[in-house]
Amino acid sequence: MTSDVRGFITDAVTQWAEAVGPENVITDASCLRAAESGTFVTHQQISAIVRPADRGEVQECLRIANRCQAPVYPISSGKNWGYGSRVPASDGCTLLDLGRMNRIVDFNEELGYVTVEPGVTQGQLYDFLKERGSRLWIDATGASPLCSLIGNAVERGFGHTPYGDHFGNSCGLEVVLPDGSVIETGFARFPSAKAAPLYRWGVGPALDGLFSQSNLGIVTRMTVWLMPAPEYFQAYYFRVESPDGLAGLVDALRPLRMDGTIRSSSHIANDYKVLSALGQYPWERAHGLTPLPGALLDQLCRELKIGAWNGSGALYGTRGQVKEARRLLRRALSGKVSRLEFLDDRKLRLASRFAKLYERISGWNLERTLTVLKPVYGLMQGIPTDLPLASTYWRKRTPPPAQMDPDRDGCGLLWCSPVAPNQGSHARQLTELVVEIVLDYGFEPAISLTVLTDRTLSCIISIAYDREAPGDDERAMACYKELLNRLAENGYYPYRLSTGAMSSMASPGCYTQLLQSLKQTLDPGDVLAPGRYITVEGSQQEPRKPSTPAH
Amino acid sequence: MTSDVRGFITDAVTQWAEAVGPENVITDASCLRAAESGTFVTHQQISAIVRPADRGEVQECLRIANRCQAPVYPISSGKNWGYGSRVPASDGCTLLDLGRMNRIVDFNEELGYVTVEPGVTQGQLYDFLKERGSRLWIDATGASPLCSLIGNAVERGFGHTPYGDHFGNSCGLEVVLPDGSVIETGFARFPSAKAAPLYRWGVGPALDGLFSQSNLGIVTRMTVWLMPAPEYFQAYYFRVESPDGLAGLVDALRPLRMDGTIRSSSHIANDYKVLSALGQYPWERAHGLTPLPGALLDQLCRELKIGAWNGSGALYGTRGQVKEARRLLRRALSGKVSRLEFLDDRKLRLASRFAKLYERISGWNLERTLTVLKPVYGLMQGIPTDLPLASTYWRKRTPPPAQMDPDRDGCGLLWCSPVAPNQGSHARQLTELVVEIVLDYGFEPAISLTVLTDRTLSCIISIAYDREAPGDDERAMACYKELLNRLAENGYYPYRLSTGAMSSMASPGCYTQLLQSLKQTLDPGDVLAPGRYITVEGSQQEPRKPSTPAH
Repeated sequence: MTSDVRGFITDAVTQWAEAVGPENVITDASCLRAAESGTFVTHQQISAIVRPADRGEVQECLRIANRCQAPVYPISSGKNWGYGSRVPASDGCTLLDLGRMNRIVDFNEELGYVTVEPGVTQGQLYDFLKERGSRLWIDATGASPLCSLIGNAVERGFGHTPYGDHFGNSCGLEVVLPDGSVIETGFARFPSAKAAPLYRWGVGPALDGLFSQSNLGIVTRMTVWLMPAPEYFQAYYFRVESPDGLAGLVDALRPLRMDGTIRSSSHIANDYKVLSALGQYPWERAHGLTPLPGALLDQLCRELKIGAWNGSGALYGTRGQVKEARRLLRRALSGKVSRLEFLDDRKLRLASRFAKLYERISGWNLERTLTVLKPVYGLMQGIPTDLPLASTYWRKRTPPPAQMDPDRDGCGLLWCSPVAPNQGSHARQLTELVVEIVLDYGFEPAISLTVLTDRTLSCIISIAYDREAPGDDERAMACYKELLNRLAENGYYPYRLSTGAMSSMASPGCYTQLLQSLKQTLDPGDVLAPGRYITVEGSQQEPRKPSTPAH
Repeated sequence: MTSDVRGFITDAVTQWAEAVGPENVITDASCLRAAESGTFVTHQQISAIVRPADRGEVQECLRIANRCQAPVYPISSGKNWGYGSRVPASDGCTLLDLGRMNRIVDFNEELGYVTVEPGVTQGQLYDFLKERGSRLWIDATGASPLCSLIGNAVERGFGHTPYGDHFGNSCGLEVVLPDGSVIETGFARFPSAKAAPLYRWGVGPALDGLFSQSNLGIVTRMTVWLMPAPEYFQAYYFRVESPDGLAGLVDALRPLRMDGTIRSSSHIANDYKVLSALGQYPWERAHGLTPLPGALLDQLCRELKIGAWNGSGALYGTRGQVKEARRLLRRALSGKVSRLEFLDDRKLRLASRFAKLYERISGWNLERTLTVLKPVYGLMQGIPTDLPLASTYWRKRTPPPAQMDPDRDGCGLLWCSPVAPNQGSHARQLTELVVEIVLDYGFEPAISLTVLTDRTLSCIISIAYDREAPGDDERAMACYKELLNRLAENGYYPYRLSTGAMSSMASPGCYTQLLQSLKQTLDPGDVLAPGRYITVEGSQQEPRKPSTPAH
């Protein structure tokens, strides 16, 4: 590192320490190295971790960043697993860790919303509501109870209830701009506007979208809408035995989603995906070979009653509404699936008590089904869980520890997430392409398709591997990049990018120019999260900070 | 007009004529004067009307505008009645009339969408779908079949079906930026992205919102999502007799909207609003006095069976779904309303044949009810109508002509549209304030409340008057401005502004500065719709073009 750059950073760190207190500036090498480790190969290093306590400190940190030309990279909880964890999109940033800003600043039971800071996690909000005996449900992702609500929403992550589109169910953003000034979006920009936490657009241009998947501002507060608990809830599970069944399934579900009968996402996972949710790679039975041999996959699916495609979803409403939706779902899926099962709280309680007896009577091995599906069942009611996290240990040789931490434990995970039209033909074409590519690179093509909106399928491809297996880091990244390219060639573009691929969608043209002018206007010094979704021309080719360690 | 400015404009007009053909440049004084006339007092004059045929011509027109420093103001159909019609937000613009760009460029029955240009009207799309025997419904506003779909959506107008939030049900904007370059938003920016017309966000910052209620670009193409016709449709109508009943009504409807039982807007109109929908001002019975005497209002309401508040809405679904929703609606409104009636196509057909008989049996004067409610019934099925337009003739002394044109006919109309939380207490507080102010200015406080989203009420206040009545123009504008101010003081801000008040929300501060930097970046010459929602500092005080006629 040249002494110039080191000088800038030392100066900035000193000033940040004054702004947030020295105890909230971390420069310890092992902590920095931990924060530089995600679930796939990265080379970006960080200079320090700064932990502001409130909005005012965030503003001051940005002013210092500008003065010292020292870029910062904000994280909320940093649990952006599969897309980059805490690792910045470019080298030489200081992490701005917003985890201390964890206040729930407003809550309204009747109108169903909560206003939170970036450090508020799914689990924290869940507990908050429970303590108050609230009838409101959150919409949780499967990532972990420790995930930030704001972090996930601004990344446009999604969950499992009718409020699954997280960014679409939030409004009234408080944003610190790169120069340290603050705005609020929508009606929140007006003093004491009554509809500020309730109405998305406000008046005049709607700016919310600018601050999602971007580096144009730091969201320091946001209102999240919450769903009133329904009178009655029933989950459904189905499966098809043959890969060919997928297209018919998607086409059967679409009309029910479009006419509002199904109000939440259906998730459809392939055999590999379910298998990796149930346990680790069967190293012994595979005789150490990878990828999973086809015959063994078939055998495991037969043993564990896993279909080629396995779906779940839920019905929300009064008993009457759910009954009618169930009738329509049965009718739509008739002949399309080999099993369709419904589960509610009562059945779940009974099952726990009489699982063995139940199996004798019904022939349905409820107990095993429950082990598999209970976390998903909870997620569909907005109960956060970290069970899905265990699947990041799929290719590890040791079992997941009690306190799982994929970044620390060398779990390899790359998520590639193309969006396709909600039509069977596209589901088939997309998934066939994915299976071919991922197998070709020697990984298991674990795929889920989520009917996130009426008209689209969000496909999540997990490339799960062991970062400690020699060569796997490079092979997985090559696989991810080939997926991105080949899928784009076929018209399937990702809804979200990993920090390793954020410049991949910046094809030359007016759109990229527009993004760059916006960035130039709001952040002329390129100090906020450089390279994050908006890549300023030339900055990728010539990193401003050398990549030798700063610590 | 100084010779300099005239020189600029003459030069621009010559170049525009070359770009779009001289037959598409209108400078005839009577045409210009007509386009300068809206439904309230304005002083802005226009220099010419230019009618490009396609996106390429729009681009060229903007390049000319920049070269000649001659600002343009785009309109789609120009039917922005009550908010400014075709009149630009600032003086000295040339109208860019996009009406010739009226192609429906894409249509997909299965995925329910249509991609249109700005000149495509509600009526045109309705006919298009009907000709093809499509099962898709549009969502129409009550303004007229001649309203542009894009014009209404980018103004964030709303309608009556579950797709009522027009901007919220569109995506994939093609936008000509002020410098003449073109971008597409969302996935549409990528070549042949399959989800381009289906998915709102795309990847990276979401820019759609920038181009609604703004002057940052001209939307030349947009995808509009369409709703599949439900198996069964049933409208509901209700009323409460006392003004005090409003709060309980709103609180009873909210849970049904929030839990998805009611999927579309309920519209609740006060007595004045319904009265002005039924006919013109009762000049004779009022002995020429205005505003409408209270005793006469009461008498008319009794005669016409109008409640203090009168609601309508619809249920969409299978017969079973609608039946259950009806049960829940009945239960929720029990004791809250004096009447609750349901109407479907069959009842409507029967009613037309046996209205007299039906009245004798049921005591319900169905025929009159139908005359009043049939247009609303159609709107709830996405059938455009121009009947609501007749109410703009409320205070005129002659009946509405067969071809209504409020701009031409001197109909006075100012719409003020505050947003409030979807709670009874706010509905009461807001409407009481409105009634007091509007009566004070001598107009009838015609109010409707639309439960547009789960959490908000969109209130539309119509100040309807006769532009030919001396003093009314000024009084109505003063009333509108006092409404805006007093409502804002009470925390109720408008979702949309008239061209006469677009700078009223630009309070000094970081938000206004941000809007101005965006404008400066995208349109340094301020040639695109100057003053429209974003007011560049100083430009209101010193209009760049003198206000003497250019023709």
